[in-house]
Amino acid sequence: MTDAYQKLAAYARETAILASAGSLLDWDQQTYMPSGAAESRAEQIGMIAMLVHTRRTCAAMRDRIEEAEASGLDPQSAHAASVREFRIDFDRAVRLPSELVGELARVTSQAQQAWKRARAADAFASFAPWLERVIGLCRTKAACYGTPVGGEPYDALLNEYEPAATAAQIEAVFTPLRDRLSRLLVELRQGKDPAPIKIKAEAARQHDFGLYVIESIGFDLARGRLDTTAHPFCQDIGPDDVRLTTRYREEHFTDGLYGTLHEAGHGLYEQGLPRDAHFGEPLAQSISLGIHESQSRLWENWVGRSLEFWTWALPHAASIMSAELSSYLPEQVYRAVNTARPSLIRVEADEATYNLHVMIRFELERALFRQEIEARDIPGLWNEMYAALLGLTPPDDTRGCLQDVHWSAGLLGYFPTYTLGNLYMAQFMEQAERDIPGLKAGFCAGSFAALLEWLRANIHRHGRRYRASELCERVTGMPLSADPLLRYLESKLRPIYSC
Amino acid sequence: MTDAYQKLAAYARETAILASAGSLLDWDQQTYMPSGAAESRAEQIGMIAMLVHTRRTCAAMRDRIEEAEASGLDPQSAHAASVREFRIDFDRAVRLPSELVGELARVTSQAQQAWKRARAADAFASFAPWLERVIGLCRTKAACYGTPVGGEPYDALLNEYEPAATAAQIEAVFTPLRDRLSRLLVELRQGKDPAPIKIKAEAARQHDFGLYVIESIGFDLARGRLDTTAHPFCQDIGPDDVRLTTRYREEHFTDGLYGTLHEAGHGLYEQGLPRDAHFGEPLAQSISLGIHESQSRLWENWVGRSLEFWTWALPHAASIMSAELSSYLPEQVYRAVNTARPSLIRVEADEATYNLHVMIRFELERALFRQEIEARDIPGLWNEMYAALLGLTPPDDTRGCLQDVHWSAGLLGYFPTYTLGNLYMAQFMEQAERDIPGLKAGFCAGSFAALLEWLRANIHRHGRRYRASELCERVTGMPLSADPLLRYLESKLRPIYSC
Repeated sequence: MTDAYQKLAAYARETAILASAGSLLDWDQQTYMPSGAAESRAEQIGMIAMLVHTRRTCAAMRDRIEEAEASGLDPQSAHAASVREFRIDFDRAVRLPSELVGELARVTSQAQQAWKRARAADAFASFAPWLERVIGLCRTKAACYGTPVGGEPYDALLNEYEPAATAAQIEAVFTPLRDRLSRLLVELRQGKDPAPIKIKAEAARQHDFGLYVIESIGFDLARGRLDTTAHPFCQDIGPDDVRLTTRYREEHFTDGLYGTLHEAGHGLYEQGLPRDAHFGEPLAQSISLGIHESQSRLWENWVGRSLEFWTWALPHAASIMSAELSSYLPEQVYRAVNTARPSLIRVEADEATYNLHVMIRFELERALFRQEIEARDIPGLWNEMYAALLGLTPPDDTRGCLQDVHWSAGLLGYFPTYTLGNLYMAQFMEQAERDIPGLKAGFCAGSFAALLEWLRANIHRHGRRYRASELCERVTGMPLSADPLLRYLESKLRPIYSC
Repeated sequence: MTDAYQKLAAYARETAILASAGSLLDWDQQTYMPSGAAESRAEQIGMIAMLVHTRRTCAAMRDRIEEAEASGLDPQSAHAASVREFRIDFDRAVRLPSELVGELARVTSQAQQAWKRARAADAFASFAPWLERVIGLCRTKAACYGTPVGGEPYDALLNEYEPAATAAQIEAVFTPLRDRLSRLLVELRQGKDPAPIKIKAEAARQHDFGLYVIESIGFDLARGRLDTTAHPFCQDIGPDDVRLTTRYREEHFTDGLYGTLHEAGHGLYEQGLPRDAHFGEPLAQSISLGIHESQSRLWENWVGRSLEFWTWALPHAASIMSAELSSYLPEQVYRAVNTARPSLIRVEADEATYNLHVMIRFELERALFRQEIEARDIPGLWNEMYAALLGLTPPDDTRGCLQDVHWSAGLLGYFPTYTLGNLYMAQFMEQAERDIPGLKAGFCAGSFAALLEWLRANIHRHGRRYRASELCERVTGMPLSADPLLRYLESKLRPIYSC
């Protein structure tokens, strides 16, 4: 490491410490803030964001990056990779005129209100002009960033969430995945859905059980929390503070549990990044949303929906959460939580069909962005695609193309990262099973440490040193492919559906 | 109002919005922060404090104050008073060299650790050098501020908490108060302590009852909260966000209730300041700690320990908090919560003896500051004064001169504001009773709005327009005097003790 790097890192740490005050304002807004404080909270968050943006784009930051670049770091070192990422972030941040940032913030805030009204009234037409406006601003934003080498304009948006990925690469993986998933669903249709679990559990008991589970898998509650919110999320609030939230429904304890496990997966990644030594540096930041999602889906699904997990968890669930569970066998719970059936709502979808929901959105938003279709074409196309891929036609737009907040919020390019997460997860876990003998069997006894250590050593500790695709090849020896996810889903679901 | 004033106010609002992010960091540290985040939290709080201090002492702020001063405001207007206060704050802030601020922060942080160890081990000698060091730094601070006109050097510290007050004025009120309080205690010693209330109430039920009470007295829970912490406090976190905390002991529900009422009194003052229109300006800030304490003690004691309050509250307490209370009469609870008996610990003291604890500290810290005594003399003097004033000798320094955190934290000049609060309270309330017919009788029916409106009209809405002594004369027609507090205590306690 060089002095110049140290100077850059110290400056970036200060910026990140300031930004983390904004994270707390945001977390508090969704957890404990009194309702009447919403307006002034926006002012507080805006104030911190403005100061942070200024620090991230100012001449002092530019000079420190230039000095670090010229300081003779070993090009193969982690610190050189860090400077490369500092440069990318800086160049992106300064390319966006602050007027555009302001307009995007204002318009997406209004568009989200319009979306909420349209969804409540099943009135897509009233939302269409807002959607056109947001897409227009996103096109302007993409133009500011410029089209990445070898890519298309849409990639500039995608790269906000998945750096260096291209829509073409994603399409190349999504296409075989879609085809084989569709065939799998046809197969499963021949079988019978597993019997559901019918118990009730108080929210407070569900919370206790959730805490027990996340501590057991290695989430450090001395450096984190679990709270309740309308929508589950994971938020880091400083070098030693990563907070999770979930929600509880008394008749569906699995909602809360899988929400908790999902966010704990994100939290374990955050806690596994070298935050103490490198807070504010790319070395302690996550690679991409796709890699982040691979960690959350891994604990939620690969671990949390395994027979071995339930072999360990069921007695604890019965004693902590609800005695009614004593009458169930691990095998019954395992089958019930792996029901795979086409449905209309993405966030309620099972592991297999979930990816089809994502692909529909990816295809539509790419076409919208390219101006091949217009906002008003969305409802018709949406329903056609749901009929074709999932065999279901939404009875209204509320349960159709108005279900997600993302487009109104300007989050174009975000959806594909959900399925990328599932793909990375499956590919990583095939390797983990090769590397760790008896991995799954260990879960039966509540042993999750070997898996967490493997994730820390292979993924977490690198921060942003490698690109997602590069990390994937380093860890698994292969470029990202649809095969591991398909093998995982087919080998799990066929026996459950006896086909 | 002038354009220059508006410019100054806008700048100050931004500073206050930034500072409020620091308030949330502080509140969170005491409520929900994971234990492992303590170190980085200090970094976050320090970062915001540094940015706020820079904004408050920079040339831009000075220029805006100068422009407002020269903008031809009506000298009798609220805005002119606001500019006067802006100037005072600025001049004080720039007088402290930042090295001194840093050293004070560091040394008091270490001294608090030393105090905790000394208190735990009953080892005053190990704390004495730290106390000397803190007092020395406080003397340096007072020298930077300069001695206020007509005052003594100690007043510069006092004025951090009680602007424009002098130790001589305070002494002139404290002396007669001490003498008559001592005589009252001798009288009461002839009577018998009321029977205590012996019930148990779960913390969660106490919390529900606390919420019911503070909503009933007018605390707006849409712009505030109530949480649980080791030490109760009230913290404002923005224009529409004032948060209270309390603590619960199952066998002593009155601890939690009076903690809640005390903090709610502070909170009602904060919510009554014109925060929406003037956040960040002196017009929406409290006058002094003495006035702030008058509001907290008023709801805690004048209202919350009245027979009329219990006439209303007892059935609600029985139904919300503990059915065991149904066997008590309001009169019994009223008598029990007004037990007046000398004790060793200030924070557990009753309304009458509390002020004697404060006076001992005031006298000692003034003598320390003047170098008339040394830190090592404190234990002996402390015990002599407790024997003389309260008739009790602490069995050790832990229950004696090591009981309070204030001196280790550098809070010299803070203690007298506690008794000032009681004095202002009694004097304000004599006037309120003259102004509002049937004031106390209204409490029997849960009517507290007339009192709150009176406080808002006479005290809260003025912000820092008037000095504390000036406000006292405006509201009550009289300078601050010991008589109202003595009349209040004597007329309440003599009947309870049948003397």
